[in-house]
Amino acid sequence: MKEIESVKESDGYLNRYQHLSSCCDCEMTFSVYLPPQARDTKVPVLYWLSGLTCSDDNARTKGGFQRFAAKHGIAIVFPDTSPRGDNVADEPERYDLGQGAGFYVNSTQDPWRPHYQMFDYVTAELPALLEANLPLIPGLKSVSGHSMGGHGALICALKLPGEYRSVSAFAPITNPINCGWGKGCFGAYLGDHEAVWEAYDASCLVEGGARVGDILIDQGEADEFLHEGQLLPDNFQAACDAAGQSLRIRMQPGYDHSYHFIASFIEDHFDYHARFLK
Amino acid sequence: MKEIESVKESDGYLNRYQHLSSCCDCEMTFSVYLPPQARDTKVPVLYWLSGLTCSDDNARTKGGFQRFAAKHGIAIVFPDTSPRGDNVADEPERYDLGQGAGFYVNSTQDPWRPHYQMFDYVTAELPALLEANLPLIPGLKSVSGHSMGGHGALICALKLPGEYRSVSAFAPITNPINCGWGKGCFGAYLGDHEAVWEAYDASCLVEGGARVGDILIDQGEADEFLHEGQLLPDNFQAACDAAGQSLRIRMQPGYDHSYHFIASFIEDHFDYHARFLK
Repeated sequence: MKEIESVKESDGYLNRYQHLSSCCDCEMTFSVYLPPQARDTKVPVLYWLSGLTCSDDNARTKGGFQRFAAKHGIAIVFPDTSPRGDNVADEPERYDLGQGAGFYVNSTQDPWRPHYQMFDYVTAELPALLEANLPLIPGLKSVSGHSMGGHGALICALKLPGEYRSVSAFAPITNPINCGWGKGCFGAYLGDHEAVWEAYDASCLVEGGARVGDILIDQGEADEFLHEGQLLPDNFQAACDAAGQSLRIRMQPGYDHSYHFIASFIEDHFDYHARFLK
Repeated sequence: MKEIESVKESDGYLNRYQHLSSCCDCEMTFSVYLPPQARDTKVPVLYWLSGLTCSDDNARTKGGFQRFAAKHGIAIVFPDTSPRGDNVADEPERYDLGQGAGFYVNSTQDPWRPHYQMFDYVTAELPALLEANLPLIPGLKSVSGHSMGGHGALICALKLPGEYRSVSAFAPITNPINCGWGKGCFGAYLGDHEAVWEAYDASCLVEGGARVGDILIDQGEADEFLHEGQLLPDNFQAACDAAGQSLRIRMQPGYDHSYHFIASFIEDHFDYHARFLK
């Protein structure tokens, strides 16, 4: 991995790297915030998975995360949201499919399959790369994200029990097989096999017996995509209630889907993850 | 003024407005963050003046200000950095002159003079408009800014004694008559009259007897524009020392000129201004 940028923030360093991903078979860019504690010791890490249209840059610029990462001594990894490049399949006229919309699944379908292996990328290749190259405590990691990336966080934790100490999400898609964004991406990346779709759907995973210790979700009540039926938190709540899965969804009156919403509550999410990352 | 956008953040509202400015003789856009306290009472206000190339959007998105404005019950006004529009003079191939680079002065020279009246706009027209339309305590205001806007903050406070309760700046240009950015803009907007230039130069104003209660400046030591000689904090320090003007410049090792630097220290600036805005 090659460092291509380093900026000091809150006494730590926000670095950007490029590497050749074997999972995704292309050059990938990601950012890592290393808190000041990482100068002297290895630190735990929060993986942050961003939403549709985002790259590694949005959350690191607009989320206000770094001051809380510095407070708690937690590194943050900001992966990209899909493979990228001229040789990577895309639907340039669509924001919700192709580059910027990898949905954190392993594609089984051409033309997507050769590069769109984002589940393995964010859960296996990237953690192994970072634990080998940065001062991170091996295995001590949590995951969070926003919208498509909130769903990504949920399935990372649900599909890999014990891998993440804690999971939270902002305005996550929670039942992609029943919403427009999810159907569009799952149909393209996974074909028409219902069982494959369900294996990447947070609500179906809980129904099928997957469990994590606890889940924290913040959801704005004025979120336009909530009202459009893309997020479906009631479906996830019902699945968790039926399964006895602990879940706290905080409905936040007046908040929309933007980074202004994330910035408003990110402190609580760092406090939450910090308890599990000690 | 017409509200064109409203987003909830940190329990308050980040609003964007448009209005026809009489000073600048064009439609101007600005943003205001109203903290939750403004629902029940009038609040004090911090004017934030942004730097070259910025609009009202950069600091409100990238600065991490709103949580501290909410904590202290202070509104924030984010003006644009110049007049805008097809009928407004510009140098589209330059980032440091014309639209996005108003330098917070009142131009005396064509083609700039008809619209580039940013000093009067941010110190008189906009405060009067906002005090008449928003729950702001009349006259209870402070000013801060970044780079070109940090200089703007200094000259607002120095040229209008008593008008602002406190002033601070991040990486301000401090002696524009002696740096490339300043010479370019002052030459265009103000002609070649040395006395007019000096009347808009923070260091010259202090040398000429202007005083404010106290000044807080944060300056990154790894700031590329510091090393390029655009900011010249030593000149301002020397002018303040000679004049007995209280000034605290905090040199911050490793920090650059970006919003990551601002986000790292904005909490201290809100704490500072809050003491004067009680």
